[in-house]
Amino acid sequence: MISAGTTLRAVRDSKPLVHQITNYVVMNETANATLALGALPVMAHAREEVEEMARIASALVINIGTLSPHWVEAMLAAGRVASGRRIPVVLDPVGAGATAYRTETAKRILDEVDVTVLRGNAGEVATLVGAAAEVRGVESMSAGIEPAELARAAARSLGVVASVTGAVDHVSDGERVLAVGNGDPLLATVTGTGCISSALTGCFLAAKPDAPLESAAEALAAFGVAAESAAAHAHGPGTFHARLYDGLYQLDPETLDERTRIA
Amino acid sequence: MISAGTTLRAVRDSKPLVHQITNYVVMNETANATLALGALPVMAHAREEVEEMARIASALVINIGTLSPHWVEAMLAAGRVASGRRIPVVLDPVGAGATAYRTETAKRILDEVDVTVLRGNAGEVATLVGAAAEVRGVESMSAGIEPAELARAAARSLGVVASVTGAVDHVSDGERVLAVGNGDPLLATVTGTGCISSALTGCFLAAKPDAPLESAAEALAAFGVAAESAAAHAHGPGTFHARLYDGLYQLDPETLDERTRIA
Amino acid sequence: MISAGTTLRAVRDSKPLVHQITNYVVMNETANATLALGALPVMAHAREEVEEMARIASALVINIGTLSPHWVEAMLAAGRVASGRRIPVVLDPVGAGATAYRTETAKRILDEVDVTVLRGNAGEVATLVGAAAEVRGVESMSAGIEPAELARAAARSLGVVASVTGAVDHVSDGERVLAVGNGDPLLATVTGTGCISSALTGCFLAAKPDAPLESAAEALAAFGVAAESAAAHAHGPGTFHARLYDGLYQLDPETLDERTRIA
Repeated sequence: MISAGTTLRAVRDSKPLVHQITNYVVMNETANATLALGALPVMAHAREEVEEMARIASALVINIGTLSPHWVEAMLAAGRVASGRRIPVVLDPVGAGATAYRTETAKRILDEVDVTVLRGNAGEVATLVGAAAEVRGVESMSAGIEPAELARAAARSLGVVASVTGAVDHVSDGERVLAVGNGDPLLATVTGTGCISSALTGCFLAAKPDAPLESAAEALAAFGVAAESAAAHAHGPGTFHARLYDGLYQLDPETLDERTRIA
Repeated sequence: MISAGTTLRAVRDSKPLVHQITNYVVMNETANATLALGALPVMAHAREEVEEMARIASALVINIGTLSPHWVEAMLAAGRVASGRRIPVVLDPVGAGATAYRTETAKRILDEVDVTVLRGNAGEVATLVGAAAEVRGVESMSAGIEPAELARAAARSLGVVASVTGAVDHVSDGERVLAVGNGDPLLATVTGTGCISSALTGCFLAAKPDAPLESAAEALAAFGVAAESAAAHAHGPGTFHARLYDGLYQLDPETLDERTRIA
Repeated sequence: MISAGTTLRAVRDSKPLVHQITNYVVMNETANATLALGALPVMAHAREEVEEMARIASALVINIGTLSPHWVEAMLAAGRVASGRRIPVVLDPVGAGATAYRTETAKRILDEVDVTVLRGNAGEVATLVGAAAEVRGVESMSAGIEPAELARAAARSLGVVASVTGAVDHVSDGERVLAVGNGDPLLATVTGTGCISSALTGCFLAAKPDAPLESAAEALAAFGVAAESAAAHAHGPGTFHARLYDGLYQLDPETLDERTRIA
């Protein structure tokens, strides 16, 4: 059953610890979004401690936005621990397709870790399923494939729940496809909003690990509702960004389901 | 004598350089808080330059929130320089107790560096004095010991001024305990507010190095007052966060003492 | 011809990819400023991918605010690729003069890379031309030389366009000197505003690579106008910071030239 409100309430009640190995650009932002939603972030990337940290977490979020070799090793080590303990793992393949290093690292994580949800834009996901994609830096320009079909194809070929975000988001387990219509165009004017959606996916998965298709769609819907609230008070990307955390904090489990647009 | 207003005026008059070796998540935030207060932050972590930078600073803040081996070496090198020159050192043991790597690194810094003030939450500080503590990630859940006594015990056993922050903060030199009642619950909804309190402790110590118990308590009180001002204009964690820097900037040395609650 | 409005329109039309190898403190901020202006940021620093990324970018911005050896190698590698392909390069020598490591790294980049624009404060630039300067941490205290002359001297001796920012900015190609009068004192209360001006210089250079003197001055003027708009809505550094991105986003190519003060 899909109910972002019910899962949000579970997040706030259980305050799951969400371990995030993410890029330098957005660490503060994803931690703050996690806190504003009601979960507990922990950011740790050292090879010396990632396995211990992953073991006590309720979800692991791996984001390859700023890679280097030591970080890749830590991601794999933490991911293997999470896989072994059935802790849900979100992979955000930032910039896959832009450089060989990113594409190969994303593929390697998909191979060696039991990724629960792959959350990316159309270009990144298309790269990983081998479809033709034009990727400029970390912004996806076009993927040359209808996004609902892309999500389904990615889920099937990669054995994950694929969460493809865009103007409308599409989440698929390879059979069903859920379309999420919440959000606001200002999201594209702030860096890290994709990364935040991956972090929030980790929070929702932690609270509802047995239904990753639903959890992933609910997370995007909740984030989209927060963005809609933020946009109503914004004068541009800066005030929108600040209001985004207010919006996450103010999400009301009682009324959230009425505001979500998941089809 | 305790007077946050007098010390704040001294900070603004002397604009001390505060060297911060801190975690990736909060670097921007602690630098901005330092600037908003009226001091000068400098962030430098390379083994190649930390000693030179520590030498020209008026205080050193070491924060272990995102560790890796090269950073630990730089922290120790900078700390030894500061110790040798009687430059005050603040240690923020983020996540001590959550992983062995963090606990051991914090202990090693306490052993090898002349730490002036240890600023942490109850779980982190309790871990370091060996008390039973439950630590989840970097959030302290409970420490099983009354915080005023924890501060006193930490100060005695570790030979530091212990600054234990929470709903009420407790600062002790092993004899006296000062309780600071300023602050707002929204502080817990923004990541890095503990790290900011450590950075501001460094600023106050730089201006009043000979009375670290008082400086540490004044820093927390000033930050708490800024948080109270911020909360009055906030709609949630995002606007509170932005207003926090406004609040630090607007702190008035003339009226600050009337607003601080240090007992 | 100088027209910040025309170049801004070109930025928004072409959405150039601006590769930034910058410091940990300001990555989020420079990426967001780039997006708010209308260009596309990409942050990548790994030796494994910087050359590939530099190759697809329209400008490269190198900022030495938090150095370490691996990063220096990546900066040089990316810089050499950009030089070979006549992609404009901006160097921000953060903290040159504060430590030998920073000064030497900045000089090494100037030697080995074809730097188009050197954007720094008076103390940093003076250090690099061998003039006496007092630099505390990353803040320039005084340069002991008139800033217009400093810009001209730096441009001549280093073979770059020198962009020296301060209360009034001075940009020189060694012959002409342009003075930019836009801006607001609140810029000095937020960390990374210098770094943002370097990132925006990269955006303007990408859109108008053949006139770097003009592009560099236009970028500073546009940023200064955004700061003036932000200050009108700010209550201190935090709200000013948020409004700065709003201000960049709201810059209107039609009216920008009327608001810029370039002499």
